[in-house]
Amino acid sequence: MRYLIHLSYDGTRYSGWQRQGNSDRTIAGKLENILTRMNGGEVTVHGAGRTDAGVHALDQTASFDLVKPIDPSDVMATLNAYLPEDIAVTSCKTADSRFHARLNAAGKIYRYVIRTDEVKDVFQRRYQWHLGKRLDISEMRLAADLLTGTHDFTSFATSTSSKHSAIRTVKRIDIRVKDGTVTLEYEGTGFLYNMVRIMTGTLCEIGMGQRSASEIPEIISARDRERAGMTAPAQGLTLVRVLYPETAAGGK
Amino acid sequence: MRYLIHLSYDGTRYSGWQRQGNSDRTIAGKLENILTRMNGGEVTVHGAGRTDAGVHALDQTASFDLVKPIDPSDVMATLNAYLPEDIAVTSCKTADSRFHARLNAAGKIYRYVIRTDEVKDVFQRRYQWHLGKRLDISEMRLAADLLTGTHDFTSFATSTSSKHSAIRTVKRIDIRVKDGTVTLEYEGTGFLYNMVRIMTGTLCEIGMGQRSASEIPEIISARDRERAGMTAPAQGLTLVRVLYPETAAGGK
Repeated sequence: MRYLIHLSYDGTRYSGWQRQGNSDRTIAGKLENILTRMNGGEVTVHGAGRTDAGVHALDQTASFDLVKPIDPSDVMATLNAYLPEDIAVTSCKTADSRFHARLNAAGKIYRYVIRTDEVKDVFQRRYQWHLGKRLDISEMRLAADLLTGTHDFTSFATSTSSKHSAIRTVKRIDIRVKDGTVTLEYEGTGFLYNMVRIMTGTLCEIGMGQRSASEIPEIISARDRERAGMTAPAQGLTLVRVLYPETAAGGK
Repeated sequence: MRYLIHLSYDGTRYSGWQRQGNSDRTIAGKLENILTRMNGGEVTVHGAGRTDAGVHALDQTASFDLVKPIDPSDVMATLNAYLPEDIAVTSCKTADSRFHARLNAAGKIYRYVIRTDEVKDVFQRRYQWHLGKRLDISEMRLAADLLTGTHDFTSFATSTSSKHSAIRTVKRIDIRVKDGTVTLEYEGTGFLYNMVRIMTGTLCEIGMGQRSASEIPEIISARDRERAGMTAPAQGLTLVRVLYPETAAGGK
């Protein structure tokens, strides 16, 4: 029986979503350890977004199979009983046997929060990048508009393989200012490795006046990671939501 | 020279505001260690609210003296440079030599957040009590109205000395429901030891139907801690603001 779960986690203590060898410090690893015991046999969990070390999720999705069918509300209750305090399963249901949380995803929404106020926010410190500098929002919005659309995003990825296409569509980048923070919300069909963090670092350098928005087209066309800005720290990044086509077995 | 600072802190890692012996695990102790080095001689910091172990502050105030006058913005910058990541000074100014952060305070606002949703909020887990049960808000509001006013709050304090009056004025208790949480906001002239947490525990027992709002007057008149409800856990409590009369040297 195939299952689809929605979950949220504070990624601070983890080395990311994806299991690496025997490391127990991954989100997928925590889930798989519990599910394997429930199932009485190895379970592999497929997450929609393979979030990096230190990256959070408000509403991640994942799919997996169990040999004998267990009531979804029991699966959810057991997971929440054994998961650590920084991971929570928010829903669980059965899915079509062809459904795959990552392969069926049509898009993702990520959010990056930058604290511009000089004084840090002690309650949000794990979920923000404390830049402590003012940003030129209108210049950042110009740059965000130039990043939006379908492009080869090689310049905005840590490592790309020549075998796979680096063409992605960024549908929108919304920039909101509130209470000493600047929030960047990205919606796209998919994102390359570190792409959201590199776009964020580049937008911040533009906001600080170290670069101009007009450089974006040449950075894109260079297809060279060296041309874009810094990689913003992981802690400010949160996977907000995974989008599925209406017809997929996914979605809440 | 006397100084007044405003500060916020995540109290999770601390054994409270007040220095106890040589313990370095207090908020006052962290401040005093840095200020004593700046001052070249012992500094005592007087906080307006002596928050308990695990209790947070959004906008606490504190006053202290330095032998040689130092520019307030330098005092703030030095404190923030040496304070740990869970304590932040948000403002610093000089004050009248008769000003005392606690003795001049006219009132305080505390907030208690209860998560009623069955699933925990991983991002707010340190700042909420995860009750995971529905609450009868209208019954709680009836009880809150009966608690409001000037009463002897002996029944709502962990330990009271017969030497000191237990009469306090609770100006308002606002109950707000939002996104799977219930927030209780208390404004009063002052609060006895554990008083906000015991009022919260009692209101929750009423909200869960274990008690009725109509019991409040007899609980108050009994002047007996045994008659009130449980002490709600520290982590859900935050000192929101300290109120000063218009004429005091305090206030932001």
